[in-house]
Amino acid sequence: MLNISDSLESLIDEFAKLPQIGRKTAQRLAMYIIRQPVEDVEKLSKALVDTKERIRFCNVCCNITEDEICKICSSHRRNKNVICVVEEPQDVYAIEKTNEYKGLYHVLHGRISPLDGIGPNDIKTKELLLRLDENKFEKIDEIILALNPTVEGETTILYLSKLIRPLEIKITRIARGIPIGSDLELADEVTLAKALEGRIVV
Amino acid sequence: MLNISDSLESLIDEFAKLPQIGRKTAQRLAMYIIRQPVEDVEKLSKALVDTKERIRFCNVCCNITEDEICKICSSHRRNKNVICVVEEPQDVYAIEKTNEYKGLYHVLHGRISPLDGIGPNDIKTKELLLRLDENKFEKIDEIILALNPTVEGETTILYLSKLIRPLEIKITRIARGIPIGSDLELADEVTLAKALEGRIVV
Repeated sequence: MLNISDSLESLIDEFAKLPQIGRKTAQRLAMYIIRQPVEDVEKLSKALVDTKERIRFCNVCCNITEDEICKICSSHRRNKNVICVVEEPQDVYAIEKTNEYKGLYHVLHGRISPLDGIGPNDIKTKELLLRLDENKFEKIDEIILALNPTVEGETTILYLSKLIRPLEIKITRIARGIPIGSDLELADEVTLAKALEGRIVV
Repeated sequence: MLNISDSLESLIDEFAKLPQIGRKTAQRLAMYIIRQPVEDVEKLSKALVDTKERIRFCNVCCNITEDEICKICSSHRRNKNVICVVEEPQDVYAIEKTNEYKGLYHVLHGRISPLDGIGPNDIKTKELLLRLDENKFEKIDEIILALNPTVEGETTILYLSKLIRPLEIKITRIARGIPIGSDLELADEVTLAKALEGRIVV
C-alpha cells in the first residue's frame, strides 16, 4: 500500500496478526472500520481491552472466567466426581450445549504437538495432575478425555492416560464414529474402523 | 456460549459484525485475544480508534487520507489531465502497484446496485461531476472507468458515461480479457468474447 497513514498501516498490521486473517482480509477489514460510525469502532476497541483485562483462567479447571473460580467449578449442582478434559474453552461450550454432562471440566489450552514444539509443559497438564492429587479426599471416579481425534489429540491422550493410570481412576475417551446425519459411504476407513470397534449392544 | 463474561460476549458480538466474520470465527478470534499479551491487545485497540479518528476522505478525489487533500492529488508529478475512476480505495493501491499510471483518481466508494438499494447518490458521483465542472479551466482529457467487470460495475459505467458524455471528455474503460498466466480454455464465454472484441494490432 501507499503510505497513506501510519495508523491505517498499523491497523492492517494488527488485523493481519489475527489467526486466519491474511493481508488482503486485513485490508478489507480496515476499510470497513473506516466506514463505520465512531461509536461502533470505539465499542470494538473497548471490548478488546475490557475482555483482556477481565478474563482470567479458573484456578481449578483453567477454563476462562472473570472470577477466581469459574461458575461450573463453584456450582453445587455439578457432579464433582467426574472431570472431562478438553483442549480449548470452546470445547466446554460445545459439551455444555448437549445438556448431557453434569460433571466438571479441565481445559488444557492446547494439545501436545511435537511438530509445533508444544510439549506437555506448554499445556495445563501439571494443573490437572495437581488437581487429582489435591482431590485425594474428594473422590474422582472418572476422567473423560474429550480430545480431538487428531494425531495431536491421540498423543495427548496417550500421555495423559500414562500419567493418570497409577492413580487408579477410571479413564475413558469419547466415541469415534459416524456423525449423525452422515453416510457410511462418506466416512473414511479409520473412522469406520473405529465405529465398528466401538459398537454397542442395542 | 455460557454467560462467562459480558465483556467476552460483547467482544464476540463486535467481531461477528465485521464483514465475512461469522460467529464461530468471532469466537476463535476472541479466544486468541485472551491469550495475547496485554500490550498486543492494546495496540490493536488503539490502532482501531486512531485510524477512525485520523482517516478522512480527500476533498478532491475522495480517496482515504489523513490530510485535507491526499498525496496523489497534491503531487506535482501527477498528470492532472487524466482521472481514473475506481470503486474502492484498495483499487487505487492495486493500480499504483503497476507503476503504469501517473494520472489522478476518483474513488466512488461503491458501485450502483439497485438490488442492494445503492443508487447513484449513495456513491461519490456528485463529487466527480462537481470536480469535472470545477476543473473547466484545467483541462481533463480523459476519464478512465476502472470499475469491476460485474453487473454492478457495468451499471455504474453506463450511468457515469451518460453523465460525462455531454462534457465532451474522452471516456475509456479498462480492457476485459484473459488474465496473464491463465488459459483460454478456462475462460468463460463472456470474457473470451470481450477479449476478442478488444483485440489489438501487434
